[in-house]
Amino acid sequence: MQIAVYGLGRFGSFWAALLSQSFQVKGYSRNPDRLTPPGVKRVDLEELMDCHVLFLCNAISSMEQVLQEIAPLLKPGTLVVDTCSVKVYPVDMMYKYLPASVGILATHPMFGPDSGKNGVDGLPIVMCKERVSDEEYILWKDHFRRIGLTVQEMTAHEHDREAAYTQGITHFIGRTLDELNLHPSSIATAGYDALLKIVRQTCNDPWQLFLDLQKYNPYTSRMRKDLHRGLEKMLGTFDSIESVGDLNG
Amino acid sequence: MQIAVYGLGRFGSFWAALLSQSFQVKGYSRNPDRLTPPGVKRVDLEELMDCHVLFLCNAISSMEQVLQEIAPLLKPGTLVVDTCSVKVYPVDMMYKYLPASVGILATHPMFGPDSGKNGVDGLPIVMCKERVSDEEYILWKDHFRRIGLTVQEMTAHEHDREAAYTQGITHFIGRTLDELNLHPSSIATAGYDALLKIVRQTCNDPWQLFLDLQKYNPYTSRMRKDLHRGLEKMLGTFDSIESVGDLNG
Repeated sequence: MQIAVYGLGRFGSFWAALLSQSFQVKGYSRNPDRLTPPGVKRVDLEELMDCHVLFLCNAISSMEQVLQEIAPLLKPGTLVVDTCSVKVYPVDMMYKYLPASVGILATHPMFGPDSGKNGVDGLPIVMCKERVSDEEYILWKDHFRRIGLTVQEMTAHEHDREAAYTQGITHFIGRTLDELNLHPSSIATAGYDALLKIVRQTCNDPWQLFLDLQKYNPYTSRMRKDLHRGLEKMLGTFDSIESVGDLNG
Repeated sequence: MQIAVYGLGRFGSFWAALLSQSFQVKGYSRNPDRLTPPGVKRVDLEELMDCHVLFLCNAISSMEQVLQEIAPLLKPGTLVVDTCSVKVYPVDMMYKYLPASVGILATHPMFGPDSGKNGVDGLPIVMCKERVSDEEYILWKDHFRRIGLTVQEMTAHEHDREAAYTQGITHFIGRTLDELNLHPSSIATAGYDALLKIVRQTCNDPWQLFLDLQKYNPYTSRMRKDLHRGLEKMLGTFDSIESVGDLNG
């Protein structure tokens, strides 16, 4: 089976190299400066299209543009699989731009070159069964399991709703606390040290990724409103309590 | 040396029993239903006052009342030591109500019957040198170190400022997130699991303690304002970005 990977950025390179341990893999990047990952054959866009399965490893924000670019070039019967960290938006875009003659499978490999640097055993991947035959779906589910991944099956909406209230809220809290310039303390509690670690880790990701994960997940707006409401309620609790020796300047 | 402990609640009992491993300890509680901790002699208030050092283990919110009660009964030369989780307020109250003939030392043992159930080795205690001789101060610093505690010396204001931006902010975030009814998820990231643990732990403490730690620490109001400002700034970032397929209802 011929596998193709579109996009050889940090994640795409890692994913193409991982796939090349099981399949013949061709890779393409619009950026000629990207290195070719080990085990992968670098090709041009036309040759990339000569494949059975095409994994999309481009940024969420370029999804619409990439789909418009590849749609007229895809061969009937090709299975297109996205790997975005949000799911509703890329699935909508794939249905919108891809011809009915190609299959659609949505995945979210919840790891990358950092968390997977010592192997992917036990790491989770989300699969959303879209326009794909049972046979092809099971083939990929079995493959992901065979290489050690834990497969989580859900719909794109279930994924984004969960992601908004797990990863999304964690990053939002981390970025908010980063505004306060918190620092290690000689009287830190274990809980505070855990909070500092969350700030450090979330702020280690690029700002653009944080924006995109919030912008392209339709459930984060509701999450942010819930968080805002929770904070206002908690602040209100103290507005009504006379504090002692308030030093607020 | 005769040591007295006022207050035999959860922390007072634990503290009195710990001291009784090194000293003769008398204990008193206004509540007759409180159990007498092992190694401690239960006495009435009058007998309690016959001591060299009196540890106050009452609630922050009862500090003013307790000091008014004991002030006329204290013997000159007694050292009064509070153990509150905030420091500016109890120190102010001790200077206000205690006669000039008694000493004042402020401490914050940053542990309790849960974290100290397998011994206190390596656990932190904050000491604020107030109206206390060098000799008495060093005696207690050495004692705390001898039983394995890590002594952190600072002023009451330094303590409360640090506590507001460490323990205080952690509890505030935990209580705020608790309003959102977060739950474990099959696609949880490590950061989200850490956040859930913070919510669980902070909400395990009594609500009244949370209120008191915010109310009686003069720096938490500033911390809450900083947090509010940080959140509004972060929310504003997304007000100005058009989100995709917003599902906010």
